[in-house]
Amino acid sequence: MTAQPVLASVTSTALILFNGAFQPFQAAIGFAILGYLFTTYMIPRVSPSFVKRGLYGKDMSKVGKPIIPETIGVIPAICYLFLMILFIPFMYIRYYYNQPDTYDSEAASLFPNGKLSSFLSGMLCLESMVLLGLMDDLFDIRWRHKFFLPAIAAIPLLVIYYVDFGVTDVLIPKIIRRYLQVTTNSIDLGIFYYFYMAAVAIFCPNSVNILAGVNGLEVGQTAVIAVLLLLNDFCYLFIGDSSSPAYSVHLYSSCMLIPFLGTALGLLKYNWYPSKVFVGDTWCYFSGMVFAVVGISGHFAKTLMLFFVPQIFNFIYSLPQLFGLVPCPRHRLPHFNPEDNLMYNSWTEYTEKQPVKPVMIPIFNAMEKLKLIALIRDKNGTIIKSSNMTVINLVIIWFGPKREDHLCMLIMLLQFLTGLTMLLLRHTVAPMLFGFDNSWNMLTRFYKK
Amino acid sequence: MTAQPVLASVTSTALILFNGAFQPFQAAIGFAILGYLFTTYMIPRVSPSFVKRGLYGKDMSKVGKPIIPETIGVIPAICYLFLMILFIPFMYIRYYYNQPDTYDSEAASLFPNGKLSSFLSGMLCLESMVLLGLMDDLFDIRWRHKFFLPAIAAIPLLVIYYVDFGVTDVLIPKIIRRYLQVTTNSIDLGIFYYFYMAAVAIFCPNSVNILAGVNGLEVGQTAVIAVLLLLNDFCYLFIGDSSSPAYSVHLYSSCMLIPFLGTALGLLKYNWYPSKVFVGDTWCYFSGMVFAVVGISGHFAKTLMLFFVPQIFNFIYSLPQLFGLVPCPRHRLPHFNPEDNLMYNSWTEYTEKQPVKPVMIPIFNAMEKLKLIALIRDKNGTIIKSSNMTVINLVIIWFGPKREDHLCMLIMLLQFLTGLTMLLLRHTVAPMLFGFDNSWNMLTRFYKK
Repeated sequence: MTAQPVLASVTSTALILFNGAFQPFQAAIGFAILGYLFTTYMIPRVSPSFVKRGLYGKDMSKVGKPIIPETIGVIPAICYLFLMILFIPFMYIRYYYNQPDTYDSEAASLFPNGKLSSFLSGMLCLESMVLLGLMDDLFDIRWRHKFFLPAIAAIPLLVIYYVDFGVTDVLIPKIIRRYLQVTTNSIDLGIFYYFYMAAVAIFCPNSVNILAGVNGLEVGQTAVIAVLLLLNDFCYLFIGDSSSPAYSVHLYSSCMLIPFLGTALGLLKYNWYPSKVFVGDTWCYFSGMVFAVVGISGHFAKTLMLFFVPQIFNFIYSLPQLFGLVPCPRHRLPHFNPEDNLMYNSWTEYTEKQPVKPVMIPIFNAMEKLKLIALIRDKNGTIIKSSNMTVINLVIIWFGPKREDHLCMLIMLLQFLTGLTMLLLRHTVAPMLFGFDNSWNMLTRFYKK
Repeated sequence: MTAQPVLASVTSTALILFNGAFQPFQAAIGFAILGYLFTTYMIPRVSPSFVKRGLYGKDMSKVGKPIIPETIGVIPAICYLFLMILFIPFMYIRYYYNQPDTYDSEAASLFPNGKLSSFLSGMLCLESMVLLGLMDDLFDIRWRHKFFLPAIAAIPLLVIYYVDFGVTDVLIPKIIRRYLQVTTNSIDLGIFYYFYMAAVAIFCPNSVNILAGVNGLEVGQTAVIAVLLLLNDFCYLFIGDSSSPAYSVHLYSSCMLIPFLGTALGLLKYNWYPSKVFVGDTWCYFSGMVFAVVGISGHFAKTLMLFFVPQIFNFIYSLPQLFGLVPCPRHRLPHFNPEDNLMYNSWTEYTEKQPVKPVMIPIFNAMEKLKLIALIRDKNGTIIKSSNMTVINLVIIWFGPKREDHLCMLIMLLQFLTGLTMLLLRHTVAPMLFGFDNSWNMLTRFYKK
């Protein structure tokens, strides 16, 4: 039992310290192992302190509704941040030791862009997110305030982007270019580019936070997204030209994501069904922000969105309930049936006093035909119940009641399959639309600054 | 009542946005006003949430021992961090917009060193300190562990120093140079320089944390140290040559300290006698780390120590009790007498079972003659009580029982006077010892890298 972690520590240390040509990548794997070890070591040891401080929640989907420590996501988050700081010398030392006099000779080093400040601003952004997420978990900030917490945490990222790079161009697809008769292939968004980046930074953390409520799902979805992003990185790292700017950007991205995956898996071990710990908003915010940071500083925020399809769908699907077109009960989580130990979808109920809004009746009927909602009618045909509009409930409607862990795995699988499809489309259809692979042109401009 | 903050907001915004030649300095004053306003706005609004979460303490030095919200120092700390991030464009934009091709022409810009990454590493270090300080306040980390928390938080600072600068030389005083017959005036400490920086980072936060226990003292001492450091900065800014490297270092230092002073005064308003809030370990760690960051990244950590004389004295004076040569009761705080509302020094009591250790008897007698301790003897001349060995108790012994706020003011005044003396010595005696003002030589090497 104790030999395993010792062996893993030795392996990770060896990977970090004795690595050859492909330096940061190998070190990243070492740090991922360390992250897993540290997270799994710390969680059982500190969880009782969290309960003592009042940080706990009831697991509603278990017999007896046991008390589970909450906000444990702060442990892997802090662990990740410190590992990444220790990682810095392995990513940047070559660049600084062989500091070239001109920018052209930089191509020889592993991070020709070498902008340490960009990396540090990402770290600052993540630390701010952990700090604000912790404030939220501690003091229950109101929903309308907490929605914007990620935007505040993203300020370091935006400020450094402004000071350090300031490239605010985006590409225009070939079709639009031809239609508008423009000759340039990019447009300068100016200040709107910062709104766009802030929107990405708000979207990623909140969308992870909204797709939650089943043991393991908060962490599971982030692990799947990380894997998808890594697959995207590998397309450039193992197929692309290693002297191109895209190569170094995706090496950077994979160096951020591999240790993240390590700590996330460490957390997943304790958060998986039946959960021994809950992760808290801190984890959702933090992990969402890791993706936002990678996407923004790697200048591939649009590609990033492709891997958030279930989250985007979940958000749009939730809108009628969020905006009050459909009544929104306090919890829309699936319903646990202790008799067969399965999860059933939950319902919004209608009464004579509060019937279905007339505007929603045709929409509900259409959705029912598309199998996007379950409706229950009385003998007169009046809708008396509609399923709550979340992806989790929808998956139960599609595939029937499931045990909590099977439900979680199913959603993770859907996330992975949609992401994989998007990845294939990204590298086949997108280059046709834009007339070229967008990595080259933009990145060259980006790093020539 | 409401006109005042509005006026202050307008003034600060004007200072930040419309500033001329002396740009960052004026913006720093604007941010300090904003910091004060934001801190004083937030504290009364969020304090009840802290109590609800169980973050409160009893004020032992008041009638009725009222319950006071604890850990409130996290508010000004977060406020300071975000203000400093918003400050970045005002400090660095000139440098980046007129990016010179060679290092020599940099002297024209306000921050010729212009190392944004150094600033960001300082911010990362401070955020880590707030995060770890908060962990300590939440989960009561054991004393022997929490002593090293600042060293962990300082890792970003040390790593970036290693990657970015790596200058590890220190000056040798002229006398030693002559004695050892060496020709160079500096010595390369190598890895020991990192231990030295880590030691500074451990010392500053812990020393602020130890000199505590009187309403307002935790914040008051940091405000005084900030003022002293600013006076030191002004020696270079208003007297020195503005094209020298020392000028930009001390401009940087004052830009860090002026907003710090603003937020600290905002906290002091509520922490001053009678305290409405307690600051928590978070504040002590955070504020101590601000000084460590300024000293380390400005390469004047030795000068920094001159302003910590009362803290250093307090630490050394406490050693016999910390190491068990003298019994150490759970609390060594001064004792509050509700009858006359004054603070009296507290005592360590000796019994026949636990008498004074023989080794301490001559020491106590000598200390008594030097007025460094108060002793009470029985009719046989045996010591039955000795005053607890902290600066706070010593000040009461010297100046008699005091009301809590007068006691705090007295200690702050002593801090200021010793600091001012040290400042004068620093700029008169030190240059003679070292043969020249150490700013020039070292800094030139530092920024030529």
